[in-house]
Amino acid sequence: MKINIIGGGNLATQFLKKLLQKTEVEICQWYSRSFKKLVTKNGINKINDLNYLKPVDINLLMVPDSVISSISKKIKNKTLTVHSSGSINLKELNNNGGKGVFYPIQTFTKEKSVDFNNLPICIETEYKSDYLFLENLARILNSKPISMSSEKRKYLHLAATIVNNFSNHLFSQAEEICINNEIPFNLLNQIIKETSLKVIKNSPKNIQTGPAKRNDKIIIEKHLKLLKNSPFKKTYKTISESIIKYYEK
Amino acid sequence: MKINIIGGGNLATQFLKKLLQKTEVEICQWYSRSFKKLVTKNGINKINDLNYLKPVDINLLMVPDSVISSISKKIKNKTLTVHSSGSINLKELNNNGGKGVFYPIQTFTKEKSVDFNNLPICIETEYKSDYLFLENLARILNSKPISMSSEKRKYLHLAATIVNNFSNHLFSQAEEICINNEIPFNLLNQIIKETSLKVIKNSPKNIQTGPAKRNDKIIIEKHLKLLKNSPFKKTYKTISESIIKYYEK
Repeated sequence: MKINIIGGGNLATQFLKKLLQKTEVEICQWYSRSFKKLVTKNGINKINDLNYLKPVDINLLMVPDSVISSISKKIKNKTLTVHSSGSINLKELNNNGGKGVFYPIQTFTKEKSVDFNNLPICIETEYKSDYLFLENLARILNSKPISMSSEKRKYLHLAATIVNNFSNHLFSQAEEICINNEIPFNLLNQIIKETSLKVIKNSPKNIQTGPAKRNDKIIIEKHLKLLKNSPFKKTYKTISESIIKYYEK
Repeated sequence: MKINIIGGGNLATQFLKKLLQKTEVEICQWYSRSFKKLVTKNGINKINDLNYLKPVDINLLMVPDSVISSISKKIKNKTLTVHSSGSINLKELNNNGGKGVFYPIQTFTKEKSVDFNNLPICIETEYKSDYLFLENLARILNSKPISMSSEKRKYLHLAATIVNNFSNHLFSQAEEICINNEIPFNLLNQIIKETSLKVIKNSPKNIQTGPAKRNDKIIIEKHLKLLKNSPFKKTYKTISESIIKYYEK
């Protein structure tokens, strides 16, 4: 399977690293506008101009959401081109060849290698033959291909944003409270881990605990007092109110 | 080491189960007001009246925060009595003997056994000798004793509430979105797990991603539109604004 990778960010880099380990896959070209010149390094042909893009089996278009539409317009080969965004409709692709989506439900950062094993990857294509091709790619990665429409995928992306981005922000705020009070943040490692592992076996709705769940106004007031003039105070209040309302029903 | 356990909830039950496995510990009595009568079952003496409480080495007072003060008043033996709450000051104990705190930084539910290995347990006492006693109990559990004042502990409890209760509520809301759109919630298992494992190695502040971090108003508006009249819409907005402000600094 011959593949071009388009993009120089975290997602593209992690896929490149992983695919280079697979004998079934040949990385033909890697495009990033930030590459200085056309070079071949460690066996990879780097290009910085999409006019040089050769036809292959799949173009993996791994660029920011905001430029998927404009960059795909510059892809003139007849290759199946797939983007990897949770929130962009398949129809926003403007390339010449087939169009598809290959969206891994995971957070990608440069610092940490992603575990592709059993990772659900949402696939959408215009044609059945293209679907089978992408399904095969997911299998090569030991990942779990999931068929999903653009319509459903946008709700999944919303849910993924909530569990990943929003939780991480809560962790940041908790870390800030720890730092301000000279408490090692790593004392929370185990409770953070346990919180996430619990919802794999239980519905989070059924295992909610804490002052807001009990509508314990005394503790909530104590916490708000500790937050003093923190900009996080509003978020604390809003989430507590959301929990109280959710369990009133 | 002779121990009485006071309380019939999740925390008390989990500690009881764990301590019964330890040869160094003898559970003398287990009190809960909901026990029907005084019985000895599986070698445990159950009591429902604190007047019968015998003197031992430690009374573990594991009752809801709101009744720590009133129940501790009924403890007339001269035994060191420790509560296990994150948010209650040591001074709120009203028992006759020594006073202490033994607060495990973890979430306890009936469904799942807690892993005590390396679990940080915050200890506070009036007297050094009592501290050494509780430190020893933590070691028997293979847990990690941490010395912490009531003043610091309340901030730690605030941080624990944020990372556990609030995150779990986010998971509930994400699950609700999945259910409403016929998406299996377990597709998010791996991203939830990864989100929590990442902050063990990185400061959450440095690995924040997502639309709010990028101040990507287009995606945020798309998400708000998907939430329509959901009661969660306000929380989505508030957290996104909190993230945007946090990274403006």
